[in-house]
Amino acid sequence: MRNMGLQRLTLVEPLEFPSGVAVGRAASALDVLEGAEVVSDLKQAIAGCSLVIGTSARSRSIPWPMLTPEQSAEKVVTESQQAEVALVFGREDAGLNNEELQQCHFHVQIPADDDYSSLNLAAAVMVLSYEIRKAALKLADQSDRKEDEYWDQAKATGDQVEHFYDHLERVMVAINFHDPGNPRQLMQRMRRLFGRIRIDVMELNILRGILTNIELNIRKDTD
Amino acid sequence: MRNMGLQRLTLVEPLEFPSGVAVGRAASALDVLEGAEVVSDLKQAIAGCSLVIGTSARSRSIPWPMLTPEQSAEKVVTESQQAEVALVFGREDAGLNNEELQQCHFHVQIPADDDYSSLNLAAAVMVLSYEIRKAALKLADQSDRKEDEYWDQAKATGDQVEHFYDHLERVMVAINFHDPGNPRQLMQRMRRLFGRIRIDVMELNILRGILTNIELNIRKDTD
Repeated sequence: MRNMGLQRLTLVEPLEFPSGVAVGRAASALDVLEGAEVVSDLKQAIAGCSLVIGTSARSRSIPWPMLTPEQSAEKVVTESQQAEVALVFGREDAGLNNEELQQCHFHVQIPADDDYSSLNLAAAVMVLSYEIRKAALKLADQSDRKEDEYWDQAKATGDQVEHFYDHLERVMVAINFHDPGNPRQLMQRMRRLFGRIRIDVMELNILRGILTNIELNIRKDTD
Repeated sequence: MRNMGLQRLTLVEPLEFPSGVAVGRAASALDVLEGAEVVSDLKQAIAGCSLVIGTSARSRSIPWPMLTPEQSAEKVVTESQQAEVALVFGREDAGLNNEELQQCHFHVQIPADDDYSSLNLAAAVMVLSYEIRKAALKLADQSDRKEDEYWDQAKATGDQVEHFYDHLERVMVAINFHDPGNPRQLMQRMRRLFGRIRIDVMELNILRGILTNIELNIRKDTD
């Protein structure tokens, strides 16, 4: 929860609270545990909420509006801007019972493998918290940062890359690897290869340096 | 893993294996644990893989191509249709070290809260497995083919690419461009450069050919 930016935890009739084991596992998220509200039934926990979504591993006798984790997160993030919302998780061993599920507006199901669809409580909390985090970041327009934004160097320009290809071709001729009279698509393949990289300026300088050092170190036929 | 339909687990130098605790926690996913391959280093674990994605909590001294969990899952699912792929997770306490991260083509970062960004290993595995599950279900639902599926050559495997890096380093030393005693991150930069495009077998053969011809054509100091 805390990793994904969620803070408010309500515990319904916990077997043990406070719990030394829980404190130990909370690590740096002790604030969430210490701030937890403890209530005696689900009705009390969700009293002020205008949107309640319950986790369900399997479809029930009465079909209920069913959401994916992504759809749930979108609803949670949108609605929480103006009202209180709750995401309800069941017991580790038995989940939510029918009466509890019927107190929820929607059910959410994590798309697990048919052969083994029962997730640990912690795993289910992680997946739904993560989707809420993604939806919140998307809403704040911070998500989906482009690969380029992490880069430390400017990408090389088209003419810089063209000079590199010219240099590369001269060197490949000089080391008798390339015969411009019988090119066998070699330069096209080099262009396809380096073109995929979207090379940056420092990398281009390194490659040009390598090419220059090859030229300085090759035997001349006139030697 | 098993909940999300993933089966193949490789353990690199586990402290304890088989482990009674792990067996107890595996519950109905004992088949994954019993089928786990145990190896002594990461290189061995990823040897046959043409795409390797490593989990990273923070940005490193040299930025690396960084993916979101969603982008990673899409690459994993697409690529795994024709080649072996690996998702690499680090130690519970310290994650992956720099050397290990540099063996990965991409890094993936889970968009955690800035105040508490360090996820438990199990939480990170859950999020990435879940995204892979979603991407797999989406792919099974669609028929839009990706660029990679049109490729004319097989992608090079991890050990083939490692041999290329070894060869490249020897040549850079031979042309006096590279001093292993004062490496200035040169090999990391080369790995980052070529790691960005998952090179195909023919391209790798061309590059190896160029390196061989450089060796055949350089002046020996004894000349």
